[in-house]
Amino acid sequence: MSPEDNLVLSVNAGSSSLKISLYSVRPGGDHLEPVELKLTSSMSNISAPPAKFSFKVVQGTTKDEKVESIHDHASAFAHFIDCLDEEADLDRARITHVCHRVVHGGDYTDPVVVNDEAYKHIETLSDLAPLHNGASLAVIKTCLSQLSNAKSIAFFDTAFHRSIPPHISSYAIDQKIAKKRGLKKYGFHGLSYSFILRSVSRFLEKVVQYILPLSLLILSQPANTLNLIILHLGSGASACCIQHGQSLDTSMGLTPLNGLPGATRSGTIDPSLIFHYTNKAGRMSHDKGSAVDLHVTQAEHILNTQAGWKALAGTTDFGEITARAQKGGRWTPMRGWQLRAFIGERVECLGYARVDEQRNGAVDTTEGIVVDIGVSGGSQTKRVLVCRTDEQLEMARQCIPGVHVGRLRE
Amino acid sequence: MSPEDNLVLSVNAGSSSLKISLYSVRPGGDHLEPVELKLTSSMSNISAPPAKFSFKVVQGTTKDEKVESIHDHASAFAHFIDCLDEEADLDRARITHVCHRVVHGGDYTDPVVVNDEAYKHIETLSDLAPLHNGASLAVIKTCLSQLSNAKSIAFFDTAFHRSIPPHISSYAIDQKIAKKRGLKKYGFHGLSYSFILRSVSRFLEKVVQYILPLSLLILSQPANTLNLIILHLGSGASACCIQHGQSLDTSMGLTPLNGLPGATRSGTIDPSLIFHYTNKAGRMSHDKGSAVDLHVTQAEHILNTQAGWKALAGTTDFGEITARAQKGGRWTPMRGWQLRAFIGERVECLGYARVDEQRNGAVDTTEGIVVDIGVSGGSQTKRVLVCRTDEQLEMARQCIPGVHVGRLRE
Repeated sequence: MSPEDNLVLSVNAGSSSLKISLYSVRPGGDHLEPVELKLTSSMSNISAPPAKFSFKVVQGTTKDEKVESIHDHASAFAHFIDCLDEEADLDRARITHVCHRVVHGGDYTDPVVVNDEAYKHIETLSDLAPLHNGASLAVIKTCLSQLSNAKSIAFFDTAFHRSIPPHISSYAIDQKIAKKRGLKKYGFHGLSYSFILRSVSRFLEKVVQYILPLSLLILSQPANTLNLIILHLGSGASACCIQHGQSLDTSMGLTPLNGLPGATRSGTIDPSLIFHYTNKAGRMSHDKGSAVDLHVTQAEHILNTQAGWKALAGTTDFGEITARAQKGGRWTPMRGWQLRAFIGERVECLGYARVDEQRNGAVDTTEGIVVDIGVSGGSQTKRVLVCRTDEQLEMARQCIPGVHVGRLRE
Repeated sequence: MSPEDNLVLSVNAGSSSLKISLYSVRPGGDHLEPVELKLTSSMSNISAPPAKFSFKVVQGTTKDEKVESIHDHASAFAHFIDCLDEEADLDRARITHVCHRVVHGGDYTDPVVVNDEAYKHIETLSDLAPLHNGASLAVIKTCLSQLSNAKSIAFFDTAFHRSIPPHISSYAIDQKIAKKRGLKKYGFHGLSYSFILRSVSRFLEKVVQYILPLSLLILSQPANTLNLIILHLGSGASACCIQHGQSLDTSMGLTPLNGLPGATRSGTIDPSLIFHYTNKAGRMSHDKGSAVDLHVTQAEHILNTQAGWKALAGTTDFGEITARAQKGGRWTPMRGWQLRAFIGERVECLGYARVDEQRNGAVDTTEGIVVDIGVSGGSQTKRVLVCRTDEQLEMARQCIPGVHVGRLRE
């Protein structure tokens, strides 16, 4: 079997969801895009059955159904494998790599092939991030038994931030305890930042090639010269400051709880707040809806799952918040383009290009991964770009030899 | 007795210290400077006897001693009153107002004359800030009995931040619980910010008067037009963003713990960190060294008193840190002017004037309250100013009728 017959599976497990993409390896080692998307699948409501299941082969079958047999991440993944055998004309034996997004990688600075030792180490890390790694571990376990011929590789959201210097990543607490227990700023959304950095670098390279066709040599490694502020805005949100193509600082911390508020996360709060919120803050939480047994305090449970937009608006659905706002005028309506326009206005004073209303509004229907939404021809030198992130694609790219950013430990 | 015979006492109680200034009211209602300093006194090591006591009459007696009889804030204040009777040629019956700095004012938006009701209310607030209000309450109690003819007025560090809009002061947590328990961003160092705003406003007014002598009308209320970013840098440190002369946002939060690290405070940390630092985070702390009985968790105690520079460098003494740095090269030496030069470098890219090395170095020997340390004649329009803050003077000014910024509740 030639390498181009190989398939790469990318798995992205959330607390109650599973997103999967399957890629084929492109022949000829085209490093600009070494893989090609074959199919996608997604599952939601996994911990509140019946789960929603969707399966979409590129230029082929599409399937949407509610599946009674899915009740956890293991059964969700098993259902996907069954569907792969039945619906897609692809032999699962061709899957050589399974990429798993793991939120908290602790001291891992690169992806790792999961063997018994690595699995146990990732399990240990889960003490630091019990709400975040559980689902991935459940899927990895299933993969190791159901796709035993493929390499399961863990990709960590923390790894991209290995470059944050100690004076930024250290908390002002007892450093002996900090070192012993691994208490520092790790940062998250690293796969997304890595994807965006690569995409923006490629986008700017093209633009500059067009203007200066003779400057290719200078631009051979433009990612290393890029200074970016990236806002990863989703139900989990964070900001990252990239200097010379490396993470310098990010808003999330020891766990994804710190920084910007999210759909159900509080974001930064006064560290003493939770003790005034509930006097049971330090007690253990027992949430039966969780994917795995959690060793987590009530404080962490409340701040991670009962706060954020959910606490402010009673829902995590931005569409619903917008609809209510139009009726009652209580909540500010905010769609993607509106949020971008709002942020654009606020940062203009720092020298960023004014956001072009038409370009910004057309982003969702635009084909490109990266779109420049700044007014062109102005005197401002800092661009405002929109990038559609793809963590699954980033993992698939990184596991092709010669392409991955970090060093792959086996 | 004419109003100009009146004396105003300003008391600033820290957890183990007491700073006192005595002012006379200037005749003629000169609103630019309605009070005149008569003497200052300071006590330290109050909770670790013997306490250090200093007493300095302006152009008169100076006294420095260790006092065995001082063992808490009440006995410290009593010792000051004795010294006032013996050493200064001032009749304590002339003291008409005693101003007390109270860190946490909860829902108070203005200073308040302390009667039984107000005293009880401030006591209740102390549940929200047990580590911060205790010392002030002890001094207020002593004042009410020992200077019973004077009005005791509580000035709150939170009051200046009453202008912070709800979308900035709200935490992304359950809003019913937040309202019920008063959980929001209050902000602190308000008396200092108020002093700095007033001083900078006056400084800029003078400068502009000099350049444009006919523009006085436009400049009659320049504080209302000022946009400032103020860094209050001391053993407790915070930043405040002032828009149109009002606090728009500040780095401290529900308590002074959040934001920048301090001498013994952690500053912002991941809200879940403390549960990984100690599994006793939620238990009550019993610290015998405290001024009053505290209802405070171990988490709050550790993060407020065992973190910050103390945890990083083993001392809160910047001089010692600097000396060690010169020996071992481990810690970055940092004096006031160096810190200002460092910050100046970092903000230059935002359009601030380059810091003038000579002006910056000369600040400590300069007479003015406000000093412009920016290079003059450059194209940068944003100034870099240094201001020597004085919370006691700010309180004394505010309690003179017609001068105080807020409304005084009686």
